[in-house]
Amino acid sequence: MTDFTFTISARDGAARTGELMTAHGPAATPAFMPVGTAATVKGMTAPDVAATGAHIVLGNTYHLMLRPSAERIDRLGGLHKFMNWPGPILTDSGGYQVMSLSKLRTITDKGVTFQSHIDGATYDLTPERAIDIQRLLDSDITMVLDECPAFGGDKDAVARSLDLTLAWAQRSKDAFARRPGYGLFGIVQGGVFDDLRQQSVEALIRIGFPGYAVGGLAVGEGQETMFRVLDVTLPHLPGDRPRYLMGVGTPDDILGAVMRGIDMFDCVMPTRSGRTGKGFTRRGEINIRNARHAEDPRPIDEHCACLACTGYSRAYLHHLFKAEEMLGAMLLTRHNVTYYQDHMRAIRAAITAGKLTDFAAATRAEWSKGDIPTI
Amino acid sequence: MTDFTFTISARDGAARTGELMTAHGPAATPAFMPVGTAATVKGMTAPDVAATGAHIVLGNTYHLMLRPSAERIDRLGGLHKFMNWPGPILTDSGGYQVMSLSKLRTITDKGVTFQSHIDGATYDLTPERAIDIQRLLDSDITMVLDECPAFGGDKDAVARSLDLTLAWAQRSKDAFARRPGYGLFGIVQGGVFDDLRQQSVEALIRIGFPGYAVGGLAVGEGQETMFRVLDVTLPHLPGDRPRYLMGVGTPDDILGAVMRGIDMFDCVMPTRSGRTGKGFTRRGEINIRNARHAEDPRPIDEHCACLACTGYSRAYLHHLFKAEEMLGAMLLTRHNVTYYQDHMRAIRAAITAGKLTDFAAATRAEWSKGDIPTI
Repeated sequence: MTDFTFTISARDGAARTGELMTAHGPAATPAFMPVGTAATVKGMTAPDVAATGAHIVLGNTYHLMLRPSAERIDRLGGLHKFMNWPGPILTDSGGYQVMSLSKLRTITDKGVTFQSHIDGATYDLTPERAIDIQRLLDSDITMVLDECPAFGGDKDAVARSLDLTLAWAQRSKDAFARRPGYGLFGIVQGGVFDDLRQQSVEALIRIGFPGYAVGGLAVGEGQETMFRVLDVTLPHLPGDRPRYLMGVGTPDDILGAVMRGIDMFDCVMPTRSGRTGKGFTRRGEINIRNARHAEDPRPIDEHCACLACTGYSRAYLHHLFKAEEMLGAMLLTRHNVTYYQDHMRAIRAAITAGKLTDFAAATRAEWSKGDIPTI
Repeated sequence: MTDFTFTISARDGAARTGELMTAHGPAATPAFMPVGTAATVKGMTAPDVAATGAHIVLGNTYHLMLRPSAERIDRLGGLHKFMNWPGPILTDSGGYQVMSLSKLRTITDKGVTFQSHIDGATYDLTPERAIDIQRLLDSDITMVLDECPAFGGDKDAVARSLDLTLAWAQRSKDAFARRPGYGLFGIVQGGVFDDLRQQSVEALIRIGFPGYAVGGLAVGEGQETMFRVLDVTLPHLPGDRPRYLMGVGTPDDILGAVMRGIDMFDCVMPTRSGRTGKGFTRRGEINIRNARHAEDPRPIDEHCACLACTGYSRAYLHHLFKAEEMLGAMLLTRHNVTYYQDHMRAIRAAITAGKLTDFAAATRAEWSKGDIPTI
């Protein structure tokens, strides 16, 4: 056995459900990976993340290489041990955050030189270094270093960026040491240009990866454009390899992308929203800071089995946010991650039952009802 | 049955161990009550507080009367339900925080008028209102409204304050409706003046309470003075009533006070320290932000069974504090509260075994060793 294995157990239209088996165990797909940026899913202990039903989490190479450093995490036994997460971990390559967070970037064919947003120290990130960092982290799924062009760039710029990304993809593959249970994903880029996306896919397939990600979306282009890019991209990817849509998204984005053939997702939305007071429910989104919840004895979502919903009222959560108590963010984050995992579980069951279209219609109808009426 | 019951099962010198039985269940004594200021022990869910071995928590009348208000908590079913804590709750009377947090206080014989530190709104707090608020909260143990004079005041000022406090104690008792499982504590004041303390005790006993607190300590007078005040106060209190030392303290303060006959404690120290990086261990205190922990794979305290110690290394906690990740405060708070509860459990066992003196010597010897050597 080399790489991980990916087994599809059922299909419904373009959607698939199955299992990714990695060096650190299985993850059911379609999977949503909570984001553990700095070796922690913000506001949650690792056992509490597992209790939501999450099988795999994401770590950010950019953050971890700056602090506490990949070398230190390696000396401490790897990222799984460090963050007390025994299950599978996917790490990004750092490319996206270098573009969005760092200062004074210089990109050359060789790689990127940047200054840390924390202390201004200078770092080099090359395809080879990105792969090495992820090896030191002991990541189950490693991502190639790519350049993610900002949304709105002209086609020539995107095409030049794509050439660089494809060169880096080859070098990333060359640098990656295959081991049982570990795998490397290529990343499709090409902006919102259908022909560039298809070029990207063809070039990546020629290099050959055990899994493929679609990057450069959810950067401002809107859901309709994102789905169109998926429509022109996914049919050209090998049907037996997992497909990961990076940085996406809302529960509705996920539903639409699964129906187009995506198997994996990550997004800060459930955790970031949990810290700012936005809660996801089967009846759409709520803002727990809104006065309508101040004396509401009902849970955020009566169908949810998380501690926030079984132990506490909307009124209590509202109070915690008003009083700026950290337990508010802790409980709402836990709820939101649970909501996302419940959503994925329901999606997987619907695919297995061959009822994904009905499920999507019913789920969207519930969302569109809006929140339960005030008491 | 009226009031709670207090049963002493063993004595060792002046120390006692036993059980307080309230309307919401039992609490073993000596007890440490984690502080749940605004209806939350900061950074912990209620089930996690219970898992540390805490039986009873404290709520702050001042904070709750301002936000979300006692009336709202009453309409939502009381504080136990609101904060998901089914066990016993003790609430203070609000007097201490009115003095330390509010703006523009005016104290008269009738009570105190103050402006909220949150929004400047004006509130009245009288002995009768303090009792009524605690009834609305459904507090198992209600505290009389007292005036806590600032440390360093002259004796005349403290004596005048004591007169007011004793008058308020009588009015508090008159206003308190006795119910099975609920009780009212009087509060001994008198600053650092032995004769005023004794006067206070005698007057409170004449009024008569099912429990007595010692207030006005741990306000800057130092441990030696605090223990001296306990030495001149506690022998005069009824032996069959629980005694509560308010706002205390370090693990060593607690040990010394138990040996003088105190049964109950509360303090923000384990929770506040948990948020700032100070950890309590069997080898004394550590600052997890210190560079010596940056690559230490060992737990905070190898004898501790909390999640922070069984799941995570010092290096990880250090990283979380450096990265300002909320999980750092969450885990260290959980550890510190667990440490305090382990300390109380060990104290109770030592009293039962008649070995408290030996236990105190051995515990202090361990603390004085200082932290484990660096690797």
